[in-house]
Amino acid sequence: MLPIAMLGERALVDRLRERVGTVPPHVLIGIGDDAAVLEPERGMLQVVTTDGLVEGVHFRRDWTSLSAIGHKALAVNLSDLAAMGASPRASLLSVALPAGFSLEEFDALADGFVALATAAGAPLVGGNLTRSPGPLLIDVTAIGCVARRRLLRRDGGHRGDEVYVSGTIGGSAAGLAMLSESADRKLLGAAARDCVERHEQPVPRTRCGQIIGRARAASAAIDLSDGLADAVRRLSEACGAGVVLDADAIPLHEGVLEWATPRGIDPLDFALRGGEDYELAFTVPPRLRSRFLGAARRCKGLRMSRIGRLVADPGAWVARGEQLTPLPGGFDHF
Amino acid sequence: MLPIAMLGERALVDRLRERVGTVPPHVLIGIGDDAAVLEPERGMLQVVTTDGLVEGVHFRRDWTSLSAIGHKALAVNLSDLAAMGASPRASLLSVALPAGFSLEEFDALADGFVALATAAGAPLVGGNLTRSPGPLLIDVTAIGCVARRRLLRRDGGHRGDEVYVSGTIGGSAAGLAMLSESADRKLLGAAARDCVERHEQPVPRTRCGQIIGRARAASAAIDLSDGLADAVRRLSEACGAGVVLDADAIPLHEGVLEWATPRGIDPLDFALRGGEDYELAFTVPPRLRSRFLGAARRCKGLRMSRIGRLVADPGAWVARGEQLTPLPGGFDHF
Repeated sequence: MLPIAMLGERALVDRLRERVGTVPPHVLIGIGDDAAVLEPERGMLQVVTTDGLVEGVHFRRDWTSLSAIGHKALAVNLSDLAAMGASPRASLLSVALPAGFSLEEFDALADGFVALATAAGAPLVGGNLTRSPGPLLIDVTAIGCVARRRLLRRDGGHRGDEVYVSGTIGGSAAGLAMLSESADRKLLGAAARDCVERHEQPVPRTRCGQIIGRARAASAAIDLSDGLADAVRRLSEACGAGVVLDADAIPLHEGVLEWATPRGIDPLDFALRGGEDYELAFTVPPRLRSRFLGAARRCKGLRMSRIGRLVADPGAWVARGEQLTPLPGGFDHF
Repeated sequence: MLPIAMLGERALVDRLRERVGTVPPHVLIGIGDDAAVLEPERGMLQVVTTDGLVEGVHFRRDWTSLSAIGHKALAVNLSDLAAMGASPRASLLSVALPAGFSLEEFDALADGFVALATAAGAPLVGGNLTRSPGPLLIDVTAIGCVARRRLLRRDGGHRGDEVYVSGTIGGSAAGLAMLSESADRKLLGAAARDCVERHEQPVPRTRCGQIIGRARAASAAIDLSDGLADAVRRLSEACGAGVVLDADAIPLHEGVLEWATPRGIDPLDFALRGGEDYELAFTVPPRLRSRFLGAARRCKGLRMSRIGRLVADPGAWVARGEQLTPLPGGFDHF
């Protein structure tokens, strides 16, 4: 029997897709995008996504508060909706509770979840609670809506499109590294504290996704759940193109430099591989550049950086001056 | 710290509902029904539900094939949609895979899930795979559609309504009891084999729920995930009524009699408590009885039994001749 760990999540997803085969016409996008898209009635699209957090895989209860875990379990799903340009409408929460989990812990988890759900316009409408003989496990489904022509797909890019990313990258991975070194939070500087905050309570780019979707200024979008390198590779592969990033243009989080440099780690490589930034990456046809940047300016306080371009030659590369090196692999929770 | 096991799922659900507070107008039914109901556009309702199976809580891999587990994980969600009168449209699958889980096991799980998804018109459109440091855990979200006036709610009953149940009850619990006694399946008689089959691969009453919903002949509906006693108690509590069941009218599965009687167990009590039958219970105003029974006859091959009545006095009771005894509690996975 072939051990499943040798395959990884993508190969397993492919096996599921093969089994599903042809889907009915009301399924516009099935397996393989940030979220599924259904068209229950003509012109009105429903976007549905599900994602889970497993104790010991995605979080540790001795590092992170249950309120932050509740927030993050929803945030990662809202990020998937944002990457489709969708407005959040509702959420579902399933929790498998380990033995000895207390009511206070449950309440803290619920508070973190519901606070974000309410703020994001995705009220909790249902779910499931069960006990777990093992770790705490949280599965969330988020549901959103988007008009058909405002939908951001993953596979809409073209050779020649420019690649953009919102915010800064690497902060979440640096925050995780700090937590794993048992850094005393009180002693951390502002940039480092922000890294921990981004890792524990990421802010989904809901408004940015909606604004760019409404402006119809991007040809494709994806969120950065598994890192920038993984995201741009997927954007390029989905449309049969290659991608070249410009190392100097990549907006590293300040905390990455502070953390990686004294440890002899290349901050760029670290940031490219690091997952869970939950920023958005877009591809933009050059003729739509000014429309895109105009829309991006309406995403208040959120930086938008042009970081590269889709190219005809296959592969995913980062250019440092004259030198092209392959993009590193992504972050795999599997 | 109060241990959570002392509270049970319903109390925890109440805590979540309190936190959520007022929901926006597009949420027609939030926490507390079989499924949530959204109205993304006027007149068109989206029904969403999520439910999960945890190894060691809901199933044992040494008793049940992975294909059956994949089937059941979806079936329990389709049953929730059926209880709302909804047509299945799509499904999402999240799996936390334990160490050493093989590709053959994954494929068997996927086959069981996808076969039912395809047959039910709920194609798999997305999901999430992660590893689990503990048991196998499967979370499923099912999405359906229903016209507003065909929706079956849990809280629509009235005093005086008759209570009906589809199929026969207790079979799944008897099947579980047979599995836990390590019965050799080859030596089981036909009724007993059917019990094991019902426990492992329940058939959601999708068509029945749709037909009754379309006929607008029931005032309320619920599925029997946690047993008949629990279901009718919820139907009555949801509309502020009491309920009295007629012991002689309750359609026991033949296998329950075969299994319980030689063990000195009251078959009726066993069947009322036993969960996971995934039949549907309805309340029907007497003036709609003939319309309801006409619709029920179109649910081919599925028996429909009138088993009791909603009454003004609170409480949930079963009448055996002249004697009223309180209905037993439901099955709680918690």
